Amino acid sequence: MAKAVPGRFSETLYPSYRQEFDFSGDAIIDEKSEYQSILLFDNEALGRVLVLDGNVQITDRDEAAYSEMLVHPAVYEHGDVKSVLIIGGGDGAVAEEVLKHETIETCDLCEIDPRVIGLAREHLGSVNKGVFDHPKFTLHLKDASDLIADPQRQSAYDLVISDRPDPVGPGQALFTEQFYQNCKNVLAPGGLAIFQTGVPFFQAEELVEALTHLQKVFPQSGVLLTVVPTYVGGFMALTWGGNGLALGTPDGIAGADRNFSARPVDTDYYTPALHGAAFALPRWIERLVEAAAPPPTTAP
Amino acid sequence: MAKAVPGRFSETLYPSYRQEFDFSGDAIIDEKSEYQSILLFDNEALGRVLVLDGNVQITDRDEAAYSEMLVHPAVYEHGDVKSVLIIGGGDGAVAEEVLKHETIETCDLCEIDPRVIGLAREHLGSVNKGVFDHPKFTLHLKDASDLIADPQRQSAYDLVISDRPDPVGPGQALFTEQFYQNCKNVLAPGGLAIFQTGVPFFQAEELVEALTHLQKVFPQSGVLLTVVPTYVGGFMALTWGGNGLALGTPDGIAGADRNFSARPVDTDYYTPALHGAAFALPRWIERLVEAAAPPPTTAP
Repeated sequence: MAKAVPGRFSETLYPSYRQEFDFSGDAIIDEKSEYQSILLFDNEALGRVLVLDGNVQITDRDEAAYSEMLVHPAVYEHGDVKSVLIIGGGDGAVAEEVLKHETIETCDLCEIDPRVIGLAREHLGSVNKGVFDHPKFTLHLKDASDLIADPQRQSAYDLVISDRPDPVGPGQALFTEQFYQNCKNVLAPGGLAIFQTGVPFFQAEELVEALTHLQKVFPQSGVLLTVVPTYVGGFMALTWGGNGLALGTPDGIAGADRNFSARPVDTDYYTPALHGAAFALPRWIERLVEAAAPPPTTAP
Repeated sequence: MAKAVPGRFSETLYPSYRQEFDFSGDAIIDEKSEYQSILLFDNEALGRVLVLDGNVQITDRDEAAYSEMLVHPAVYEHGDVKSVLIIGGGDGAVAEEVLKHETIETCDLCEIDPRVIGLAREHLGSVNKGVFDHPKFTLHLKDASDLIADPQRQSAYDLVISDRPDPVGPGQALFTEQFYQNCKNVLAPGGLAIFQTGVPFFQAEELVEALTHLQKVFPQSGVLLTVVPTYVGGFMALTWGGNGLALGTPDGIAGADRNFSARPVDTDYYTPALHGAAFALPRWIERLVEAAAPPPTTAP
């Protein structure tokens, strides 16, 4: 139900620290779906804001920093992505970035909550540009954990993008070692998987844990950074696993630069130079990565 | 006067969007000095927090991202900084970074408000490590605009660091073309000046205006980025002007890497790789820089 007077949303992800947004006018959506609470409102500084279970998911003003960095570094370094799976991402923003690449042939999106798809179609056209009706787009309305466990999907994707929520409630299944293993299983040889891994300034353990799982499951793995203002806490970590391909090598970054020049897409955040820069970590994040590194093999 | 019950601080830099901090216990300082309102409190997530005129200045947890990036890129690229002037910065955090470099011979700091120095000595030792008593440190308790206009200081400094507040109230004098001109006047040949220039996500005009002034006044100028969580809005812009030296060139970055290896300092944020990465701009910030670029010279 929409509020009768201009309102206010206070995000309480962290004890003792909050961000707070005023509504411009009434809330557009304020309800509970089968899976989660949903709040959608406009804010003067940030445009349209989607909040699920009390956590900001996306705003008009800064979604590019998130959506573009989940897509373009992997697509441009891989160089031949044909098939993509997005886990979550029912707002459609990541799918819209994927299908900017005309060389990509199929984009599957697996979202559990049909209500999110419905409101995204109706109210989030500014971020998804109607991608749900794109001929290369397929929606799977189900639990992504089931989809990636399906033996028929083994080796089906060149790129898996995990636009997952924070590891609380039902989202926890998307942070287990089994989840990473299943993501690897659906990757074609040379494929890449990339994972939203929180804001290490406030969620350091989430990064260490993800890297520890990734190192067990994938031949190659690592982290790159983006900066999304409304994911408060500065840098957001995006972790990645490679099924025979490493992301962020000097050769890979140089190749991405060439691929971008040959097949550019319009961006608000991504550039080839920023792509290379995203693998440079502040010293305090390097220390977290070192904390996750497997112990060195000892001589026999 | 300290509050009688645990309190809360809400920063209202921007209409319609706020960040909010709970106090752990009572405020440590809550008063008005001759120049500004001063609030100092502890927060569970961020440690000690200093607020001047309602704007967060520094927190224990994230000050390194700010202080280190105002100092180390310029010092390591220049390679032979002997004399430094800090404008503002009465908390002492930037001075502490400067004097980590044993090759630096003098560090002058010009702060207008003696009360800030007093509380920094008493309550902010965690960020300034008692730098006020360092033998190479000199405090100037006066208006920085006067100090840099003093003809006796012409060409006196290898590095000028403007740790200025936001361009409101008395701080506005630190954003005029005359201010940039005076900063250039106190630079030795080959010297560098670096300026806190706000968070472009919320303060785009501040960046465009600073770059426009810098291009008029300095032979070389540009921007690099840092990410300070409690300066909400993602990237913070640090602009720079060179008196015969450009910052952020490939040669300069490679030289900084060598200088860091030869004379490393302990950091929580800075690394040579991150130094290079700080000059890569998101596309939307590139557009702001382009907006400030002087019109191309037309052929006669």
